[in-house]
Amino acid sequence: MKQKRYFLSEADLPKQWYNIQADMVNKPMPLLNPATKEPLKAEDLFPIFAKELCKQELNQTDRWIDIPDKVREMYAYYRSTPLVRATGLEKALDTPAHIYFKNESVSPVGSHRLNSALAQAYYCKEEGIKNVTTETGAGQWGTALAYAAKLFGLEAAVYQVKISYEQKPYRRSMMQVFGAQVTPSPSMSTRAGKDILTKNPNYQGSLGTAISEAVELARMTPDCKYTLGSVMSHVTLHQTVIGLEAEKQMEMAEEYPDIVIACFGGGSNFGGISFPFLRHNILDGKNTRFIAAEPSSCPKLTRGKFEYDFGDESGYTPLLPMFTLGHKFAPANIHAGGLRYHGAGVIVSQLLKDGYIEAVDIPQTESFGAGCLFARAEGIIPAPESCHAIAATIREALKCKESGESKTILFNLSGHGLVDMSAYDQYLAGNIRDYDLPDEEIRKSLDASE
Amino acid sequence: MKQKRYFLSEADLPKQWYNIQADMVNKPMPLLNPATKEPLKAEDLFPIFAKELCKQELNQTDRWIDIPDKVREMYAYYRSTPLVRATGLEKALDTPAHIYFKNESVSPVGSHRLNSALAQAYYCKEEGIKNVTTETGAGQWGTALAYAAKLFGLEAAVYQVKISYEQKPYRRSMMQVFGAQVTPSPSMSTRAGKDILTKNPNYQGSLGTAISEAVELARMTPDCKYTLGSVMSHVTLHQTVIGLEAEKQMEMAEEYPDIVIACFGGGSNFGGISFPFLRHNILDGKNTRFIAAEPSSCPKLTRGKFEYDFGDESGYTPLLPMFTLGHKFAPANIHAGGLRYHGAGVIVSQLLKDGYIEAVDIPQTESFGAGCLFARAEGIIPAPESCHAIAATIREALKCKESGESKTILFNLSGHGLVDMSAYDQYLAGNIRDYDLPDEEIRKSLDASE
Repeated sequence: MKQKRYFLSEADLPKQWYNIQADMVNKPMPLLNPATKEPLKAEDLFPIFAKELCKQELNQTDRWIDIPDKVREMYAYYRSTPLVRATGLEKALDTPAHIYFKNESVSPVGSHRLNSALAQAYYCKEEGIKNVTTETGAGQWGTALAYAAKLFGLEAAVYQVKISYEQKPYRRSMMQVFGAQVTPSPSMSTRAGKDILTKNPNYQGSLGTAISEAVELARMTPDCKYTLGSVMSHVTLHQTVIGLEAEKQMEMAEEYPDIVIACFGGGSNFGGISFPFLRHNILDGKNTRFIAAEPSSCPKLTRGKFEYDFGDESGYTPLLPMFTLGHKFAPANIHAGGLRYHGAGVIVSQLLKDGYIEAVDIPQTESFGAGCLFARAEGIIPAPESCHAIAATIREALKCKESGESKTILFNLSGHGLVDMSAYDQYLAGNIRDYDLPDEEIRKSLDASE
Repeated sequence: MKQKRYFLSEADLPKQWYNIQADMVNKPMPLLNPATKEPLKAEDLFPIFAKELCKQELNQTDRWIDIPDKVREMYAYYRSTPLVRATGLEKALDTPAHIYFKNESVSPVGSHRLNSALAQAYYCKEEGIKNVTTETGAGQWGTALAYAAKLFGLEAAVYQVKISYEQKPYRRSMMQVFGAQVTPSPSMSTRAGKDILTKNPNYQGSLGTAISEAVELARMTPDCKYTLGSVMSHVTLHQTVIGLEAEKQMEMAEEYPDIVIACFGGGSNFGGISFPFLRHNILDGKNTRFIAAEPSSCPKLTRGKFEYDFGDESGYTPLLPMFTLGHKFAPANIHAGGLRYHGAGVIVSQLLKDGYIEAVDIPQTESFGAGCLFARAEGIIPAPESCHAIAATIREALKCKESGESKTILFNLSGHGLVDMSAYDQYLAGNIRDYDLPDEEIRKSLDASE
């Protein structure tokens, strides 16, 4: 059967992002100032983020936020991304399910991350900021920010989680080709890094630690703001361009998804593809299921606790009401570096609590098996993160095969894995393993994070 | 200024390939049987290639060759590829030139190679063949064949030039993810490989050697055919889909190229983008310039000799009338593995001899400098091969700046460099060098190849 791809004309590209906070029945609980425990106002975030992003973060009233013209111009470099009917995968699984994926891997940096990087770099530039800093895991976000910063004439300093810096030297090189400064985290260049290295000189790093370092740099440096690749509500807001496009493209395919699936790190790619469809569950009585696929070794949604916690290792961020494994949680060294984060964004956390979405956890070997099957069927080698979404999709498609139901499944292919081939190499050589995570360990981490 | 991208609708995708042999004033001289020195007939090639490909190879009469439906279906997975106005690069160079590039890097395997791999795998499958074999340099072609073979249910065995096998392990992994067997060449698995390793145990390999090994395997194995990623006329034929699309897309942009540029290894990506435009020079009095950009360290077009020579190191192939450095030429270990080939395809060779096209040679450091400039301006990290085309484009664009002329330049971005980041790493660290190639060395190689 012929593969089908759907594109939008430039005129049909979204002109606004969708802010689901406006439509939520139970709004996210407020972020808290850790010292005073008072709800944060946008101004409280100004020292860290560009002002406009702070306002977007806390905006619970405006359903639609205009995408600035300059950002839309940059989006047009690579958007619309294709919506693809995965006929090869359907055939390989012999399933009656209709499987679609939104291919965000076609962006210049190879992932969905650019959708928010462009927006964040734009607002920083508009507000006269000269330098941006951030953390990155696998390097997808860091690469996106490095590229966006270059486009808008900003300098970028990226803290990359040490294990990824070493496992994925190609992404470090990509950031450097785009002109960014890249430092492995934990580093000795910040107090946060020094504290951690003093306690544990061999610590391989985590997103939580790298965030602490980047936030510290932003606070200490004039004209410098911090940017974040996921978790925050404004990041997810920017990513809704994915779902808004997908909605129109599914119309072109004359289908509507019964199930929407995405991998889950902090929630921005999941929210990005889900929220525009979820609004029809909230407003129009649709019954689409939304499944977040997280790694078994970092299961905040399936096994974490909903409570106020810090977004970073060192406790520099506001307190966030979220599903968390505790901000001191040290995730196993899985290859899906972008999913090695202890908490979930506040919007997704509230929606999970309220039963609007579901979560599954995927063992690492299952994820790579799914990735190889997909590569052979569709010709695209997925990022290790995206492999989790594919694994969850395959589970649902096989359920359809069993029941004979012809459900329509849409998943987000958040990025390609061309810069992660060493991980595939290890998988093919039988050297990828799963990580057991006893309940006790999660409890300990939560206790240590109180 | 806003970047512009042009796509074709599926209905506008080419239905035929363009066979320039039909329009050439001086047809290519015949391939010769090395034993008898008699001109080859298609049947003489049947033991090595699929029959239909042999016929295409020697077809000097039919201007248009139908693209089989099944191949067109597979093309639709990723075609049309975008034609992009490189406004970022124009701005970076401050040139009045209009620069366009055809972005072949968006194919599932990251390069133009898939255009021919799909066609070759299709014809092999149609003719009942079970196994295909080939050589690959950087791995672009091997990856394309591995993927195409998987799609059509064929087994693939790939001989990869040893220096690339080691320098570019990610591409080896990609081929393996797609299910191919990959062997570093020279290997002990063939007589050709054994002979070379006996003489020089540390030989780093070349495309010429790897071709010998693959051809030997195809000859010795029932149900197995050899496939080639460039050089041969049927490969270039398949690649004309690039130029045919570009022609329509340039019309959408309301421009016609004054200059067409592509990097040059064996000639298929160069011919692919050039020939559809070149036909208007031949037939309609257009005056477009066509520039092949080859590496200074492997300069067959600019410094080689036009003569009959073998296509491979061991002399298994027919004798080809071509510009060559001698089939015993051992190219320096540049990162653009796909350009490390001693000869040029017979069509391009004849056209160069007759003055229809030009060639320039690009030093390695200039190529990577051009690649980094392009990456920062356009957000796409080009393959080391494609960097040569970009360098040649920059030279022409800077000439326009000097003269104030607003020429329209089109180049082919044959592939992305995401799997070549270690080369960029070395470039950024100042560890990339150029290679001097004295005339005497070329003369010696030509003498040794008599």
